[in-house]
Amino acid sequence: MIKEYKRKEDKLDKSARKAEIKRLRDFLVNEPQKIQAAKLPVVVLVEGWDCAGKGNLIRSLICELDPRFYSVKSFERTPESAERYPFLKKFFDVLPENGKFLFMDTGWMEDVVGKHLRREITAQEYKRRVESCNTFERQLRDNGYVVVKLFLHISRDEQLKRITDLKEDRDTQWRVSGDDLWQQQEYDKFLSTYDDFMEATDDVAPWHVLDGEGRSRALYDALKAITDTVEAAVEAGRCEGQPTGKKFPLLGGPSQKDADLSAAISEEDYKAELKRLQKKLGKLHNQIYRKRIPVVICYEGWDAAGKGGNIRRLTYPLDPRGFDVIPIASPTPGEKNRHFLWRFWTKLPRSGHIAIFDRTWYGRVMVERIEGFCSENDWKRAYGEINEFERELTDWGTVVLKFWIHIDPDTQLERFTARQNTPEKQWKITDEDWRNRDKWPQYEKAVEDMLQKTSTEYAPWHIIESVDKKYARIRTLQITTEALEKAVEDNVVRGIKARKSKKKDEED
Amino acid sequence: MIKEYKRKEDKLDKSARKAEIKRLRDFLVNEPQKIQAAKLPVVVLVEGWDCAGKGNLIRSLICELDPRFYSVKSFERTPESAERYPFLKKFFDVLPENGKFLFMDTGWMEDVVGKHLRREITAQEYKRRVESCNTFERQLRDNGYVVVKLFLHISRDEQLKRITDLKEDRDTQWRVSGDDLWQQQEYDKFLSTYDDFMEATDDVAPWHVLDGEGRSRALYDALKAITDTVEAAVEAGRCEGQPTGKKFPLLGGPSQKDADLSAAISEEDYKAELKRLQKKLGKLHNQIYRKRIPVVICYEGWDAAGKGGNIRRLTYPLDPRGFDVIPIASPTPGEKNRHFLWRFWTKLPRSGHIAIFDRTWYGRVMVERIEGFCSENDWKRAYGEINEFERELTDWGTVVLKFWIHIDPDTQLERFTARQNTPEKQWKITDEDWRNRDKWPQYEKAVEDMLQKTSTEYAPWHIIESVDKKYARIRTLQITTEALEKAVEDNVVRGIKARKSKKKDEED
Repeated sequence: MIKEYKRKEDKLDKSARKAEIKRLRDFLVNEPQKIQAAKLPVVVLVEGWDCAGKGNLIRSLICELDPRFYSVKSFERTPESAERYPFLKKFFDVLPENGKFLFMDTGWMEDVVGKHLRREITAQEYKRRVESCNTFERQLRDNGYVVVKLFLHISRDEQLKRITDLKEDRDTQWRVSGDDLWQQQEYDKFLSTYDDFMEATDDVAPWHVLDGEGRSRALYDALKAITDTVEAAVEAGRCEGQPTGKKFPLLGGPSQKDADLSAAISEEDYKAELKRLQKKLGKLHNQIYRKRIPVVICYEGWDAAGKGGNIRRLTYPLDPRGFDVIPIASPTPGEKNRHFLWRFWTKLPRSGHIAIFDRTWYGRVMVERIEGFCSENDWKRAYGEINEFERELTDWGTVVLKFWIHIDPDTQLERFTARQNTPEKQWKITDEDWRNRDKWPQYEKAVEDMLQKTSTEYAPWHIIESVDKKYARIRTLQITTEALEKAVEDNVVRGIKARKSKKKDEED
Repeated sequence: MIKEYKRKEDKLDKSARKAEIKRLRDFLVNEPQKIQAAKLPVVVLVEGWDCAGKGNLIRSLICELDPRFYSVKSFERTPESAERYPFLKKFFDVLPENGKFLFMDTGWMEDVVGKHLRREITAQEYKRRVESCNTFERQLRDNGYVVVKLFLHISRDEQLKRITDLKEDRDTQWRVSGDDLWQQQEYDKFLSTYDDFMEATDDVAPWHVLDGEGRSRALYDALKAITDTVEAAVEAGRCEGQPTGKKFPLLGGPSQKDADLSAAISEEDYKAELKRLQKKLGKLHNQIYRKRIPVVICYEGWDAAGKGGNIRRLTYPLDPRGFDVIPIASPTPGEKNRHFLWRFWTKLPRSGHIAIFDRTWYGRVMVERIEGFCSENDWKRAYGEINEFERELTDWGTVVLKFWIHIDPDTQLERFTARQNTPEKQWKITDEDWRNRDKWPQYEKAVEDMLQKTSTEYAPWHIIESVDKKYARIRTLQITTEALEKAVEDNVVRGIKARKSKKKDEED
């Protein structure tokens, strides 16, 4: 892509280019009206050599745009705290809403290539991350995002010249980092790695290589790439991808049919086990904290199945500084206007912490499917997208536990009625609960599909029989302590070298 | 407060205390219903000695609570990135919504006392911050927050014993930090500084000293303090503070009457000046970035006064990595349910960056006042609260610039009509704009009040005559470059010692 890059002959003269730039800029200024109408979010990724003028290019792109319709994020120097999460999180975090532009000053390419060349990740992990980038771009496209990828190219000599210029001025010398100097020195290595990366990620959203040595040419080409892509997307309408057919290591179950709802525990055993397991979990929490293992625990289940009480027993022995319970309600407008996993990516635990989701991303294939809050394509595609999401988490070393808290309709009715009849519990039962109850068969089917299609080797589902709530609490504690014990023993964060921060524990 | 602390005789026997704890806990579990109904947000601040058991206490407090109604935030180890903002920002950031509990594991006391004893701030700055804490607590109270402050006390010997215990276990030894050991060594110095701080901040929300050596006693006392305070607040109803009458260094103007709306600039001068000033501003941006000076630029003005175009001319020469334009629309539900300044505190620029607010916190004393979106007490109190807010910013070294973009009603009508008649600009004009126009006299009065009551020595208002938009653009550029030039020369971040990060520029 850039290895054989040759500066193209300049076909436009100066004034013609100026006129063209003005025309395209005017065009871009009116673009937000169109992308708002078409509900399209647009991500413009600006990658390129250090000192190639990425900042200047972005400035020229945005200078006529209304600030209500765009934002700029720079990942040139990502804070160390971002290293406490899967690498894609920082990019998910900044995704724009429908109808808005995001300009990214460097992004996933620089992140992955940089870590590879600095040998912060293994060769295998590098390959994996390249694939993750493809997955990320496909998920963006399938969920309606328009992605425009630009690479600002300059020669080695030109880079050296610019570095020298910057260093000569006291007000700009701080802009030259050790990384810049190193890239200059290792220019050829970067060249071939950039090239490989671009070859490997050219399918979903193609790369546009821009001539960084000619400022107005680069601007013109960038404007053209953006306006052409956006115009085509507005024409085609918001994309709603089909399921990809990608294979996952599915376990093919468990099934609700196999649940033994008569499972119970005696009061005496409950007390003893609860005490024993909570003590163990408290100790394990210290260990995962020290070893920086991230943990995600998902609670799904029927209304009144006993999720709340179950979660409280699980969190009781945990240090409040090291965990969060994240209640998931219906999405806010800002959440609805973004990738459906955005609100979960943004809430992931940092390494060493536990996030307990009280309801989860599985709402997509349950309530959103049943109530028609998303299209059929959307929820059918979501099984794969969720498997990819959880794969990204577990590849990063996250322990992912998924509990389906299970009861039968009679038990639910009993509990609903009891709530209704107990004044201080009445707030817990709403008309919506009764309406959902009427849809038990549809939910049963959706739950079964979910268990079939998203129970993977790396993130299996556990059905927790909860007619006897105490039995259910012991079960989740058992499964959790076992999984954490195993994780502490393995203590492998796959593919990452030198994970240990020098400033140990400073930012917990 | 704690200097003369004596362990109280224990009046309750073990089983009586257990019963009392159960009673209070049940009480607390039902509290969220009441505070939701009363629209009260509750902040429980848990301060205390290192190893006093703050985490355990919080765990015991929350263990029966529904996770939907509380969150826990720990400031025991604040990330270095928080040091790039005024110290109160991190506490504002986490403020709970109406109807929810926030439990803070250490907070503003530890932050201020710790920095003081580690000599990271001057003695004068320490005194200033103590006052800022009082202001913060008063603003919280006046805006409906309930603040409960707990201090968990243990003796020097007890602390030593606990540190020793933690160090002996491999899974807990990482919990003992250098800070803990230092506090143990300097126990007496901490004791007297904690005491001074507590004496100085006992008025708005009183301190409760808890006996950290008796775990169940501490829990009982904490539960009692919380439930008593919350019950009293529910009884009294949401507080809506009166203006305090506090004095500020007001300039008593400018006034709209003094504006010369005939001010204009020739096309030729405009082009020359624009170029010159933008170049200068670009250079200054590098300098404030390098010197880590934070800048806040506020744009307010009549509809169609030309704010957008003015902002674009100002941002044109800026490096997009170093500034954000923040458009302010009507508040979201999450914003409405918090302190009215919360949504601005959370968007402050970090040191070395520029935040340009396209409309601001002055909405409180304009649209919210005129449309009745807040009570009379609320907007009348807001002038002082805003002056305090801007004082906090400027004391931190922020350059605060406030522009009122000014036109007359005839010019507005002309521009509205032109928008209406230009197809690609029609989206810029809404019925609301016409409705606001009808209220010109009310707005004129509100603007005049605002200019009188919030133009301070440290954050003065500038009226920018904008009948000639080009003249207005040159004016804002002039004022901005002058202010930044001065700031770069002074380069004083008041009261802060050793501001320079060792990891220079790493997190930009």
